[in-house]
Amino acid sequence: MTPVADSAVRELVERVCSGDVRALARAISLVENDAPEAAEVLSGCFPHTGDALRIGVTGSPGAGKSTLVDKLARGYRAAATKVGIVAVDPSSPFTGGAILGDRIRMQERIGDDGLYVRSMATRGSLGGLARATADVTQVIEASGKDVVLIETVGVGQDEIDIVRLVDVTVVVLMPGMGDDVQSIKAGIMEIADIFVINKSDREGADRVEKEVLAMQSLAGKHDSRVTPIVRTIATTGEGIEDLRSAVEQMKAWLAEEGRLETRRKAYWRERIEEMVRQALLREAGAHGLSAEDLSEHAERIADGQEDPYRLVPRLVAQVFRHEAGAARGTKP
Amino acid sequence: MTPVADSAVRELVERVCSGDVRALARAISLVENDAPEAAEVLSGCFPHTGDALRIGVTGSPGAGKSTLVDKLARGYRAAATKVGIVAVDPSSPFTGGAILGDRIRMQERIGDDGLYVRSMATRGSLGGLARATADVTQVIEASGKDVVLIETVGVGQDEIDIVRLVDVTVVVLMPGMGDDVQSIKAGIMEIADIFVINKSDREGADRVEKEVLAMQSLAGKHDSRVTPIVRTIATTGEGIEDLRSAVEQMKAWLAEEGRLETRRKAYWRERIEEMVRQALLREAGAHGLSAEDLSEHAERIADGQEDPYRLVPRLVAQVFRHEAGAARGTKP
Repeated sequence: MTPVADSAVRELVERVCSGDVRALARAISLVENDAPEAAEVLSGCFPHTGDALRIGVTGSPGAGKSTLVDKLARGYRAAATKVGIVAVDPSSPFTGGAILGDRIRMQERIGDDGLYVRSMATRGSLGGLARATADVTQVIEASGKDVVLIETVGVGQDEIDIVRLVDVTVVVLMPGMGDDVQSIKAGIMEIADIFVINKSDREGADRVEKEVLAMQSLAGKHDSRVTPIVRTIATTGEGIEDLRSAVEQMKAWLAEEGRLETRRKAYWRERIEEMVRQALLREAGAHGLSAEDLSEHAERIADGQEDPYRLVPRLVAQVFRHEAGAARGTKP
Repeated sequence: MTPVADSAVRELVERVCSGDVRALARAISLVENDAPEAAEVLSGCFPHTGDALRIGVTGSPGAGKSTLVDKLARGYRAAATKVGIVAVDPSSPFTGGAILGDRIRMQERIGDDGLYVRSMATRGSLGGLARATADVTQVIEASGKDVVLIETVGVGQDEIDIVRLVDVTVVVLMPGMGDDVQSIKAGIMEIADIFVINKSDREGADRVEKEVLAMQSLAGKHDSRVTPIVRTIATTGEGIEDLRSAVEQMKAWLAEEGRLETRRKAYWRERIEEMVRQALLREAGAHGLSAEDLSEHAERIADGQEDPYRLVPRLVAQVFRHEAGAARGTKP
């Protein structure tokens, strides 16, 4: 991909904001791949964000999240609400293709300018996916969507970090999860604003609901509001409108209590710290700490010849001395 | 916790290396909590690490990982091998306590100086658990263990990052996982060195094995060696010795092929980059970029008054200018 000139980025952002789907896809690719133009694109999009409702939909594999998200999106579209979907796929050569395929089919079937669907694949190292998801969501929001649905497989820490960027979190459960309900939900129970029991026509829906209620009372929810539990059958669309109204009510309540604002501030606090960390590392590269150096050090550490816990403070001190030396007009 | 003087840290490390269990527990607490003495402790431990075999045991909740790890540890102990166990618990007030309780009971029941068990809870933000697990493993290794077993719930990115620090990865499956085998295993299939089908007396063991084989052929394993599949019944101990010998064979093969070394280098490459990032952020704090500043910026960003994508490069440039200005004897 060849770098895009500044004026071209401005034009691209303008086209994104006017709802041009091809420009949107191009802008998303730039930020997803962390291209040189990414910061400029995101900066251009930023003034056009902040008004959309971000809904996170998470839950274990097989709970029917994708179908639920699709139906929820249709519900919003029927109400003339513009919708973006960011589907975060687990990183696997085994399933990635199939899931992506379904999404593409869905987009084609609907053929609707008010709906934009994007699949994201896990890639790179820790935190990379959360970063990319956050950036892609910003761009989709800037394209004039009123609601952005972010769907993740909700088990790991990475998913929990993705959920941090949403306003309302929906956790999808289903009957027949057996004794594993407890352990699968670890870390997820606490972040739920709304529980959905999908496939609720199956045997065991009552039991799942009871388990959720038991866990909640065990945890001693810290606020007076009880987390609503909505039953759905996503395949037939049953309960989807109930879910939509539960989301809207939750949003209104969170906004009223000032919690939406608190969440967004907390999110940005973490996000800019991570951005600073990344930018510092990049800057350090320009001040004498190269990627090649790190690789050579890693070899020596793996061989036991160098102590990483003494090395790192020394490297960082050098970066700053380098800069100070440059200011004095001397070589460090 | 009051800071410990340098000479006291040296003494603590000496006691850790001589096998003192109370010193080990104290040293682990220091590194787990990232105390001011943590770097000194880790640096002291470093020369005593690198010889132990690190075995990762991962798999979905309910697959029987804990029992398997316990039995594997007993097998090693019977062979006079000193064993450490790091059990990474999912972050939940619901299950954390119970799992930890089991572990404590196990340690008491065995009452064996050659075995050390430590539970870790998910805490803090992204990457914090992987960092803490890596550091704790270093300290346990320095205490003279020949084998360290690291047990995680294997679904999220965080777990995959933890697995990066091991030499041999065992992925635990069980019969009756139904159609979810595929999606649950996303991202995990690729990192398996050995598959275990636990609870293999249950109906469906053949089917799970077939599914694993099908997925492997679908993925087109990039090397000639087929990932071994071992059947166990952890509760009765059946198959545990087969697993132990599969691990030893895999270790020998990986070492012969130079892959153990490659893995450790790759691990340290990522680890020191993360350490540098963290150290740079800390250093930036000492050069004019405070946590309070970041919080104030986050508030303005959440209100749409400040653009994070322009802010961060400016902040980072200021950090370096601050340092350069100090070197020139001027205020920035």
